[in-house]
Amino acid sequence: MRRGRFIAFEGGEGTGKSTQAHMLADALGRRGIDAVLTREPGGTPGAEAIRSLLLEPPGEGWGAPAEALLFAAARADHVTRMIGPALEQGQWVVCDRFVDSSRAYQGGAGGVGDEAVRTLHAIGSGGLRPDLTLLIEVPPEVAAERLSRRDAGRTDAIGGRDADYHAKVAQSFRTFADDDSAAFWTVDGNAPAEQVHARVLDALAPFLDEVSP
Amino acid sequence: MRRGRFIAFEGGEGTGKSTQAHMLADALGRRGIDAVLTREPGGTPGAEAIRSLLLEPPGEGWGAPAEALLFAAARADHVTRMIGPALEQGQWVVCDRFVDSSRAYQGGAGGVGDEAVRTLHAIGSGGLRPDLTLLIEVPPEVAAERLSRRDAGRTDAIGGRDADYHAKVAQSFRTFADDDSAAFWTVDGNAPAEQVHARVLDALAPFLDEVSP
Repeated sequence: MRRGRFIAFEGGEGTGKSTQAHMLADALGRRGIDAVLTREPGGTPGAEAIRSLLLEPPGEGWGAPAEALLFAAARADHVTRMIGPALEQGQWVVCDRFVDSSRAYQGGAGGVGDEAVRTLHAIGSGGLRPDLTLLIEVPPEVAAERLSRRDAGRTDAIGGRDADYHAKVAQSFRTFADDDSAAFWTVDGNAPAEQVHARVLDALAPFLDEVSP
Repeated sequence: MRRGRFIAFEGGEGTGKSTQAHMLADALGRRGIDAVLTREPGGTPGAEAIRSLLLEPPGEGWGAPAEALLFAAARADHVTRMIGPALEQGQWVVCDRFVDSSRAYQGGAGGVGDEAVRTLHAIGSGGLRPDLTLLIEVPPEVAAERLSRRDAGRTDAIGGRDADYHAKVAQSFRTFADDDSAAFWTVDGNAPAEQVHARVLDALAPFLDEVSP
């Protein structure tokens, strides 16, 4: 059995990651590729329970180190119970956010540091990396406009942080992609969803060619 | 304001830690020392929510790495929101379990390793150590007998693990105490509670003398 491919979508709030992850999973299915769509934090019963604690903290809100540890715990469960077994069985995994979100949010914007977040990922999940990470970028004003339309001001403990925090998140993602161009493919998300989807398929062409040459 | 003292009780299930922690907190109060009694996992609203996830896992049970990350997250919240501020304000903190439980359970018996657990503690809680850790030891058959009396067979996801796991926990605690005799004081817990309490007070004599010479 050939191991499946692991594709992650990354980016800030309102970049269109979730839409693109859905569209990709559907497109893979139409090509006869057995693909599972999942998300972080979440994807397993344990990780979804941690997701609730993260987005609606029971106390005064988590400090950045506790938040980083909770994300790493959720990811460990997700990788062990779901992503790892799926890849082993030859399935493709399309994941809406993965470890680079922890690096950008808690590591960069939250101040925990990139090395600490990578260490947590090594301890929790053996340092698993996607085969390709698609970083979707849109100008901040476009993201803000999409968010205000999407949920009429509703947000959670992380999405609701201030513009400075989210600017640091975007800057962190940009730095990761610049520093490791083999692992990342940056996609301009400032276009209609179908057009962005076509760019995503272009990025995946080498993997798709392997399956149906 | 002089910083308070931080005293932790450690040991396996059925060693009498919780009883001794309560008795010590009461004894400190009678001596006019402002002391808070707390426990792990827990002690803050956030950490208590994580405790529930740990003792009654929502999925198939946590793997050891996820468990270690969750304990470290709970501890980070506990240290940041409760233990640290209390010590700064001059209060003594008496804690039923602390980082050495993570080292013995997840690190030793669970196989995550001592270095990994120490690293998580450094990232989450700045590596905070108690001023003194009281390790209470009883023979395994005494612990088993106490547990069968205490909760009529009721247990949780961690306490309910097999005898081999709990033997590794006890061995790990013993190794920590042997390796760092300045940080640990081992107390023979196989005696009536009042007698064990007297041994605990003996161990704390140097700290108590500082307060009321």
